[in-house]
Amino acid sequence: MKSDLDHLMAARDLTAIVVTGEAHDNPPRSYLANGAHITGGYVIKRRGSDPVLVVNGMETEEAAKSGLQVLSLNELGWADLLTAAQGDQTAASVSLWGVMLKRLEIPPGQIGIYGVGNLHAHIEMTRLLNEAYADYRFVGETGMTLFDQAYVTKGEDELLTIRSVAKRTSEVLAATWDYIAEHRADGTTVVKADGSPLTIGDVKRFVRRALLDRDLEDTDMIFAQGRDGGFPHSRGESDQALQLGQAIVFDLFPRQLGGGYHHDSTRTWSIGYATPEVERAYRHVADAFDIAVETFRPGVDAKDLQIAVMEYFESAGHPTVRSHPGTSVGYVHSLGHGVGLNIHERPGIGHLSKDKLQIGNLITIEPGLYYPDQGFGVRIEDTFYVTERGELISLTEFHKELVLPLRGA
Amino acid sequence: MKSDLDHLMAARDLTAIVVTGEAHDNPPRSYLANGAHITGGYVIKRRGSDPVLVVNGMETEEAAKSGLQVLSLNELGWADLLTAAQGDQTAASVSLWGVMLKRLEIPPGQIGIYGVGNLHAHIEMTRLLNEAYADYRFVGETGMTLFDQAYVTKGEDELLTIRSVAKRTSEVLAATWDYIAEHRADGTTVVKADGSPLTIGDVKRFVRRALLDRDLEDTDMIFAQGRDGGFPHSRGESDQALQLGQAIVFDLFPRQLGGGYHHDSTRTWSIGYATPEVERAYRHVADAFDIAVETFRPGVDAKDLQIAVMEYFESAGHPTVRSHPGTSVGYVHSLGHGVGLNIHERPGIGHLSKDKLQIGNLITIEPGLYYPDQGFGVRIEDTFYVTERGELISLTEFHKELVLPLRGA
Repeated sequence: MKSDLDHLMAARDLTAIVVTGEAHDNPPRSYLANGAHITGGYVIKRRGSDPVLVVNGMETEEAAKSGLQVLSLNELGWADLLTAAQGDQTAASVSLWGVMLKRLEIPPGQIGIYGVGNLHAHIEMTRLLNEAYADYRFVGETGMTLFDQAYVTKGEDELLTIRSVAKRTSEVLAATWDYIAEHRADGTTVVKADGSPLTIGDVKRFVRRALLDRDLEDTDMIFAQGRDGGFPHSRGESDQALQLGQAIVFDLFPRQLGGGYHHDSTRTWSIGYATPEVERAYRHVADAFDIAVETFRPGVDAKDLQIAVMEYFESAGHPTVRSHPGTSVGYVHSLGHGVGLNIHERPGIGHLSKDKLQIGNLITIEPGLYYPDQGFGVRIEDTFYVTERGELISLTEFHKELVLPLRGA
Repeated sequence: MKSDLDHLMAARDLTAIVVTGEAHDNPPRSYLANGAHITGGYVIKRRGSDPVLVVNGMETEEAAKSGLQVLSLNELGWADLLTAAQGDQTAASVSLWGVMLKRLEIPPGQIGIYGVGNLHAHIEMTRLLNEAYADYRFVGETGMTLFDQAYVTKGEDELLTIRSVAKRTSEVLAATWDYIAEHRADGTTVVKADGSPLTIGDVKRFVRRALLDRDLEDTDMIFAQGRDGGFPHSRGESDQALQLGQAIVFDLFPRQLGGGYHHDSTRTWSIGYATPEVERAYRHVADAFDIAVETFRPGVDAKDLQIAVMEYFESAGHPTVRSHPGTSVGYVHSLGHGVGLNIHERPGIGHLSKDKLQIGNLITIEPGLYYPDQGFGVRIEDTFYVTERGELISLTEFHKELVLPLRGA
């Protein structure tokens, strides 16, 4: 969590970190700026001090919502720097870095650059900064970065937002169930009042609207029916009509409108009735889900949950990536992952994971079974929080019924 | 346009360009991949050859929609590279670059790295690549990059999409006008059938839905009323009720759902009636708009349009940033900008711009007047295309009436 940043910086010998980048969706910036919707500028954190925001004059008001110190580019003399550089934005930006480092009294040493933005611009800017300021070394980082490590546990300040996003996402699951249920069948096809087929595109439009009504935004949901649901990453075909007796994998993982925390949840629905094959697989997945939850305890190796699930699936006759490496049928993915400002964060919950599960984690548990040749896939997923008391609490508040009965006239 | 890329690469002495990055919204990737929705991997273009897409196995089908050669990470031996690197993704990625460069027969020389993604990861990766491959020099670029230059003119292949986005955005302007018009007034407040106020938040929700219904997404529209409209970048306050006789600046600049081309348009509406001050300013802005269009000819200096508009505004008694540098009232911004996969592209149409306007440009023209102390701002904006015959054609098909009459019962 955020209070870990200073020791994570010390471990990397960083005297400061600077978050920059042009992208609207910039998780390290949201994180340091406490969710304030600034769209550019810099967030600078000297080790041992609170972050300071440097923004365009138009964004000072929004930046102040962070509760942090805010400096405007004007205050730092941006206009003069630009004039001195004869309008060359790159040269003026190099100068601005010098002004910022001096103003914030950043001691000589290594400075970590983070954020999401134009790679070409920042690769070159880093080279220019290293050329211009001999007292500093400007560095990037691959692999599990400082932010990835901080994200692993969520603080109390984040939890209020996380719970609200969970509640609203759960409402959308319920609203979508009800929306489909209001329709009727014509033969095996689900149809609208006017007799035209209800398509996956119709449902996705409904879902996106229902999300927007709750200040959430879709980040490319899965609503995949029948054989498509047997491929874990198929998004579903928009022009396909909903059919009775077909398993539908509905994986919904929206985030706060304009960027922010995600909630990740999956339900499998079969409209009208379920085939015996789907019912059986669904029961196994529901059992696996329970086994994972029961295996959890604070400090457990993440892989132990996945291995418990694999053992269960294998004993029920399903191939897994452990028993059949490279399999594309049976249980073909990891059990879950951390979630937060990014849809996929650490810890990873696969059978090769070296991560442990701990207090403050926000993780998904999402076992599934995939048999595209038999025309189906099934998956169940909740997002869980590990409380201070070490309890694993699901934040996804929606039932796990498989069969969705139509009640349309 | 895309056919310029080879000579733009030659001018920079680049033997190849590689687009990478994690961001969902990655304009250089969309551009090279002809709009295919790939979410990761690499797009590699050797100078003189078509781009090649290197993607995760799950994305080969989507990547093929580009019409370009597609290689999967598996084909390139990713699994073995990862094993050889003992699971170290960074080390395996460095090796993968070597495999890709060899497979695509990239001659020694400079390789430009582009795209939108995690700055920290790619700053470090660039350092590692420069360390690992002595035959190549991996470089970034600031300022007006190769892609910025290519984006300046749009090709026939892009125009179909651009026209479609324009048409759908124009429909949403019309739908929003009609939506507001269906309401009634209670005193000076616009209210719904149940008597509760119609808020800016309500309108924005309507607009986001109307966009989604047309496979477009909002990228943070402005719907700012009264004094807020006097600050060009105020988004508008969601809980504010719509009022009669207040100028509303509605700046809508959505893009294709999931990333793609933008359309940029602004209308100013005053519900029920307009005050004489707003009417007068609006007339001046409409005149300025026409003057800008009349000043255009292919090859004209972009600044000439802005200067013509400034001269007109100044003669009508409005301060401009030329007559009153730093002014925050009157005409305070530039006349327009290029638009495409990015909401702001070159050419810039300000009075200091050195750009020329030419065939293939997609540009906005958006004069405005801002008087927050008098409680209003007004702006009119269309997106224009410069045809092969050198005509400046507006793609924004919606009328410019100022007064929006209510017809609700």
